[in-house]
Amino acid sequence: MSAAVRRATVDDADVLAGLLHDFNTEYDTPTPGVAVLAGRLRTLLAQPTTSALLAGDPAVGFALVTLRTNVWYDGPVALLDELYVRPHLRSQGIGAAIVERLVADAEADGVSAIEINVDEGDHDTQRFYARHGFGWTEPGSDERAFYFWREL
Amino acid sequence: MSAAVRRATVDDADVLAGLLHDFNTEYDTPTPGVAVLAGRLRTLLAQPTTSALLAGDPAVGFALVTLRTNVWYDGPVALLDELYVRPHLRSQGIGAAIVERLVADAEADGVSAIEINVDEGDHDTQRFYARHGFGWTEPGSDERAFYFWREL
Repeated sequence: MSAAVRRATVDDADVLAGLLHDFNTEYDTPTPGVAVLAGRLRTLLAQPTTSALLAGDPAVGFALVTLRTNVWYDGPVALLDELYVRPHLRSQGIGAAIVERLVADAEADGVSAIEINVDEGDHDTQRFYARHGFGWTEPGSDERAFYFWREL
Repeated sequence: MSAAVRRATVDDADVLAGLLHDFNTEYDTPTPGVAVLAGRLRTLLAQPTTSALLAGDPAVGFALVTLRTNVWYDGPVALLDELYVRPHLRSQGIGAAIVERLVADAEADGVSAIEINVDEGDHDTQRFYARHGFGWTEPGSDERAFYFWREL
């Protein structure tokens, strides 16, 4: 399958919200529901700090990306918050096409680095990102970093 | 030692740049130097998405925090980019005082979550954040996440 990748607009908020909701439902992760997500996305996608890529028509995969500043770089740092492809369409290159477009857009936009958190036991996903140039250690180091967080 | 913690202003850019530079120098991590860092901080600290805390007068410790949006929360997510205390003043509660102020400020500002990446082998730092309410798994899960990134 060939799935053209395009940048989402505010008008895609409902479609993207549906995919996000299905993503979390598939992995038994809490979701506030499509309506709440769509409302947030209408606000977020209108700002330069949130962007999304959609693959296919109708969309069967997406990436959601947020930008932040960082003192170690001149440009912003992009966090790949979510990357998802519908289950029956996986292992066909759609995720790879999304990540390739993500990297190309980030380079064009002057982004200095792209970050993503990957589950410790998810070796397939770790290999996927390694194939796309991502690493989990500093150059010359074998020290990986764990993601810690606290909800407020 | 009692080290009062205060919010940094743009006027603290030079002091904060010096601490950041010393931090990376101590850990053999590249640094662009105090002048470049101070210039960036003058820009960043004037924006609502970057904040810093300074401990002591003159400052002997700091936290640097950036905010980003996230679709899963109503409020922003804070990333604790850096936390540093001068070597001869460690294990005296200065780092704890900074983190307590960080959490209090974040709650007052409507921040929904605080994130930090901690080196895999740095068990002291992992215990430090666990004492302050941070975790490295989802509730009900034993799956930790690794931090991956790619510079552009």
